[in-house]
Formats: sequence, structure tokens, C-alpha cells
Amino acid sequence: MEPDFSPLDDYLDEAGADGYLVDAASDDSTQRYLSGFDAPDPFLTLYTPDGTYLLVSGLEYGRAKKEARADEVRRTAEFDAQEKRQEYGRFEAGARVNAEFLAEYDVDSVVTPRRFPLGSADALRELDILVEAESRDVVTQIRSVKQEAEIEAVREAQKANENSLAAAENLIAAADVEDGVLHYEGKPLTSERVKEEIEVTLLREGCALDETIVACGADAADPHNRGSGPLEANESIIIDIFPRNKASKYHADMTRTFCKGEPSETVREWYDLTHEALDAALDAIEPGATGEAVHDAACDVYQEAGLPTLRDDPTTETGFIHSTGHGVGLDVHELPHVSTNGDELEAGQIITIEPGLYDPEVGGVRIEDIVVVTEDGYENLTDYDVELVVE
Amino acid sequence: MEPDFSPLDDYLDEAGADGYLVDAASDDSTQRYLSGFDAPDPFLTLYTPDGTYLLVSGLEYGRAKKEARADEVRRTAEFDAQEKRQEYGRFEAGARVNAEFLAEYDVDSVVTPRRFPLGSADALRELDILVEAESRDVVTQIRSVKQEAEIEAVREAQKANENSLAAAENLIAAADVEDGVLHYEGKPLTSERVKEEIEVTLLREGCALDETIVACGADAADPHNRGSGPLEANESIIIDIFPRNKASKYHADMTRTFCKGEPSETVREWYDLTHEALDAALDAIEPGATGEAVHDAACDVYQEAGLPTLRDDPTTETGFIHSTGHGVGLDVHELPHVSTNGDELEAGQIITIEPGLYDPEVGGVRIEDIVVVTEDGYENLTDYDVELVVE
Repeated sequence: MEPDFSPLDDYLDEAGADGYLVDAASDDSTQRYLSGFDAPDPFLTLYTPDGTYLLVSGLEYGRAKKEARADEVRRTAEFDAQEKRQEYGRFEAGARVNAEFLAEYDVDSVVTPRRFPLGSADALRELDILVEAESRDVVTQIRSVKQEAEIEAVREAQKANENSLAAAENLIAAADVEDGVLHYEGKPLTSERVKEEIEVTLLREGCALDETIVACGADAADPHNRGSGPLEANESIIIDIFPRNKASKYHADMTRTFCKGEPSETVREWYDLTHEALDAALDAIEPGATGEAVHDAACDVYQEAGLPTLRDDPTTETGFIHSTGHGVGLDVHELPHVSTNGDELEAGQIITIEPGLYDPEVGGVRIEDIVVVTEDGYENLTDYDVELVVE
Repeated sequence: MEPDFSPLDDYLDEAGADGYLVDAASDDSTQRYLSGFDAPDPFLTLYTPDGTYLLVSGLEYGRAKKEARADEVRRTAEFDAQEKRQEYGRFEAGARVNAEFLAEYDVDSVVTPRRFPLGSADALRELDILVEAESRDVVTQIRSVKQEAEIEAVREAQKANENSLAAAENLIAAADVEDGVLHYEGKPLTSERVKEEIEVTLLREGCALDETIVACGADAADPHNRGSGPLEANESIIIDIFPRNKASKYHADMTRTFCKGEPSETVREWYDLTHEALDAALDAIEPGATGEAVHDAACDVYQEAGLPTLRDDPTTETGFIHSTGHGVGLDVHELPHVSTNGDELEAGQIITIEPGLYDPEVGGVRIEDIVVVTEDGYENLTDYDVELVVE
């Protein structure tokens, strides 16, 4: 099955443009999505209602022909890139090659992503191509709805994610407590050591990550703190892992909160409440329900328990101080919003549900599952116990 | 010591612009360099001859004030970002905030990197800010000359690189040969297994990489092939590793070619010749020598031995078919060019020297060191034996 590109066709029609043009390497997820091609240097993808066309360097040509999701792949040499470079210099030559490529498909006006490179756009304009940045998130909206192969890719990344979390939990389980601090193999068990275990496990499963969160005590009370230093007994430890599969480029995302020893009464209560908020938000998921309604379901649980939420008190610095979730795919944060002003959910969207509570006096608690919206509700892609105390 | 920004001042003067504006996350190396700040989401850096100013979200404000190389850090809330969003919508609100930020520094015309986002540029133009993409590589030229701390960062990454190469070489050394294929712990030793060893070693030293090359036999004959499958005895194995230190973001880069067993007579000759080309190119390095002259020194060795080079035969598909080197820093490929048309080298530039020979009938050979240009020549940052046969 192919994605439904009709909203892009409609948008081009409305904007009076012949095509949608991307000039980026494949680390740009819109490029990766439209081209289906993975390359480290920028190349062009032209989407038109008639087809998708790539313009790549000679170096990438053979591979692009085999791997890209394109009706046609062209190479810059076909448009005399070298000769133009001699005559016009690097920048203008590039634009002239691009303009000739567009002309092959009778395209003289394009809409682009908002982060399309200014230098390329202005140089095309000099050659009388109309270039406008899109005024809505048309393509990111389209790619929020996943095809079966994309769901499989997230499922695979999530499996690796669970294995890496298990490796982290095993380290904590195997640790001894000395003077209130976790020790492993005779040394204090640090956030850094646990992260390394997570990363090595992921790497052996074909996944990579730039950052991961292993945050204990007061660190865990700040949702943006990645955590550092020795882990303490009787404190909550938030582990949030969001790896990317290196081959598919799709992400997973999950969080568990652990405690080695005796959690405080408050952390215990927060944990149970957060588990309840997770279930309430999950129950609210179905096509047509808004991301806001799902967020509200989580907020309601906290509000009824008398705990502050950003929804009810925009100035609060403790309590539930972030969104309930977000879309996940080629980007770890993408559409849809699962928060105030979140739009209607569609079957095939992959989202996280991650309620949590934070207070520097208490610590932090967060539980996060990743799920796919289905025709009649959702399927939970997460297979990991929800248990606070690690023994 | 601060970098010498006078070429940028001169360029702004020449272009009649008040400042140089970057709108990018810190994965953009120019952003990382000018701001000195590491953040996952796009933010603004404004360079003027009077100072460098950052505009960040509230989320990053505290950290930016502590960590950024900036005379002043502002946050979007100071410019009523939320209120503007209600009134003008997300895109125009962003531009109005940016324009008010520029106005604080009396800036109404800016030059930008060529990949500055079109959406941001056009929205600023609507607000009567003059925005032009730069017509030369001014900032990338400035950042090609490294300060002492940057050289230290590359040195540190290179140390980790050498340890990861040693781990790879140890695997090959420990392997047995069965039916012409390397075996380790009872299984064929594959390119993938060696890469995993390299990555795990790097990760434990705080480095990351997206790709690495372990290419054997015919794979090694294609400089762009990353390699796959079982490694063979008596064939050349090229290992090329270019990791990035996760904290400093600076790269290292090195290559060695190994052979388990008996290399062919041709591979042996090519190896010695390539070692000679490496030494010749290194000898040519000094401030004022051009990158082209360094490239020529390597090409001359091959040419005198009767082997084809791209310099002498632009159509050759065997022999020395790439550049002698490139700059290394925040990007793994950056200025200066060490190739045909390479400009004069300057003290403080960090470059690779990586001659090599390729032919699908023979295999591939490449030896790569990373060095820093000094006042009287160069310092080699590479400390790794140059030995073909692994025993």
C-alpha cells in the first residue's frame, strides 16, 4: 500500500503549484519519506501528481535506481553539471541543473518544506521558477498515518527498545545498596553506566540513539534532565529510551520508572495514579477522538486526585507538566499532537502515551507506552511490565 | 583564543549587511560553531561585528545562558511569542518574534548560510528585513582553522578511534582461517561483526558514528562500499573509521588496510606505494602550500609507478580515484580541500591524508592519517602502526 498523497495533490492545486520540491539529505525525514532513499548528501525529490522524480549525483545514481521510491531517477551529469560549474560557478550551476531537471517534468512552480534551503530557492527564482514555502504541514500530516511496513519497523525498534530496558533493569536488579547508593561490581552504579548498557544493547540490535534518560531523584523531577551520577536507593529512577533503527530509520519510545529498595509513600501513590492516567488515556484512543481528548483523560485522573496539571494551571512547576504524548515515526517527535489543541486521531497513527508527575521534593514518575491507532481503538506495541519496585 | 572573525566582518561590510543570521539546531555545524551551544531544536544565532546574540525557547534559556558562546541570550517569551501565536498563527508569529529580536540589535539586513530555511527568510522579508544567502563559504572557511581546544577535541576523538581500530585488528588477529574465510568463535567473521566491535568500543569511549567501513576484496575496490559479509583470507581489508565525540561533536578519521594470510604480490606493491604516497603528501604539508600541491605529491608517486590517477586520467575507474584528503572538524568532511583546486593551507587546519589504489580484480588499499597543519609543517595526530599483514 502506498500512502494517500491526495491531500498533497489538493494542496498543490490550491497553491497553483506544479510540484512539491525537497532539497535535503535523508536525515530530513520528509526527504526520506518522499524519496524512500537514504543518502548522506543533499539531493532533490520532486513530487507531482503524476509521479515522483529524483535528481542525485553520479555517486548515488546506481543505488538510487535500485532503492528509491521514485518513478524516475536522474543524475546531475545528464544536465551537464561539470560544464555548468566551469561556466557559472558552483551555486548558479547547481540552480541551472535543478531548473533543467524541473523543466523535464514541465514544472515551473513548486511548493517546498519550510526549511528548504534559501540559497537554492533564490537561485531557482532567478531562473524564473516560482518557489514558495508551504503554509501548512501537509507532508508531515500525511506521514503521521503509517502503512503496515512502517508499523512493522516501529514494532521492530520497540522490541530492541524493550531488550535494552531489560538490560538496564537487570543492572539495577543486580546492584547492591551501600550507604544508600546502588553499587555494581564494586563500584557505584551511575546513570552513565546504565545508559552505556542501554546503548550497547541497542547497537547489537541494529539501533542507535543520540540521547537517553536515566534520571534519579531530583534529576527525575525535571523531565528534560538526562540524568547523571550515582543512582540512589529508595528514589525513583526514570528510564526513557527513544532509539532509531539504523536500517529502517523508524523510532520507538518508551519509559518506565523503577525504584531499588523502598519507595516513599508519595512515589508509590504517584506511580499508581500515573498507571491509572496511562490506562485512562489509552481507553480514550480511537479514530476521530482528538489528541486533546486523550490528553484530557490523563489530566482528569490527576485533577481528580488533587494534583496540579499544566492544563488547569499554566504556571505550575510541579505535577503533570508536559503533554500526554506525541506521534512517532521517522522523527521521534512528529504529528499528531496528543495535547491541548491536538486534532482528531486517524487509524494508522503511532503515538506515545506518557503521563507523569514531578516535584523536586519527591522525584519524578513517568510511564510511557507506544501504540498504534486502529479502526476500533488502538494496539499497544509495548510489551513490558509496569512495576515500580525492582528486586 | 577566539577564532578570527574578521573575514566575516569584511564580508558583511562588502555585502552591506548588518549581521549574519543562523536558524538551525546544533546538528548544523555552523550553528554549533557560532553559538557554541548544543540544542536539538532550531534556534537563532545573530553574529554582528559588535557581538553574538542567541534567541532560544524558554526550555533552553537557562542552559544557553550557561553554555553558549554568546554576548547575550534572549528567549522568545520576551517578545510575546505566545500572544503573537494566537494573533498571527505559528509561522508569522515566529517571524515577528525574530524581527523584534533583530531590531534589538539595530539589524535590518542579514546574510545567512545557503541552507537557511526559506520559510523563515521569506517571512522576515515580509517584515522588511533584507535577507540574502551568502555567496561564498565565509564561515566554513573560518571554522577550518582550529583553536587549541578544537585540536584537543579531535585528538581525543582520534585516541578513541585508534582504540576501536585496535579492537577490530585484534578480532582479525584472533580469527582462524577455514576454507579461505576468517572465523571467530566458531562462526565466519563478518564485516558486520567487526563494525559492531568498533562501534561498541567507540561508544564506551563517548563516541558515536553513523557508518563505518570494513570492506574486503572486491568490496574494498569501491571506496564508497561500506562492506558486508564474511571476511576472506589473503584479501585486503580496508577499515575506515570516522567517529564523532558525543560531547565535543568533533570528529576523527583514519584508515588502515589489513590482510590475514598472504597478500597477493600486487596488493603488497600497492601497499608499499600507498605508504610512499602518504609520506610524500605529508612531506608537502605546510602553511602556504596548496591543497592541490599536497594532492599532487601523492598523485606523482602513483604516476611515476605507472598507475592511473584521476588527476591524469579523469575517466579512469581504477587506480587512485579520489582526493588525497579533506578537512575534519565539526563535520567529518569540511574545508580545506586537499585535492585539485585546493587552496593554500593555513596553520591550525586539520586534514586527512588518505591515498589509495582500487581495482575490482585486485581489491583496495588505503592508508589514512589525520594531521594538523602547524607553523612549520604538520603534526600527525595519528598513532597507529602502518602494517599490512595481521598475524
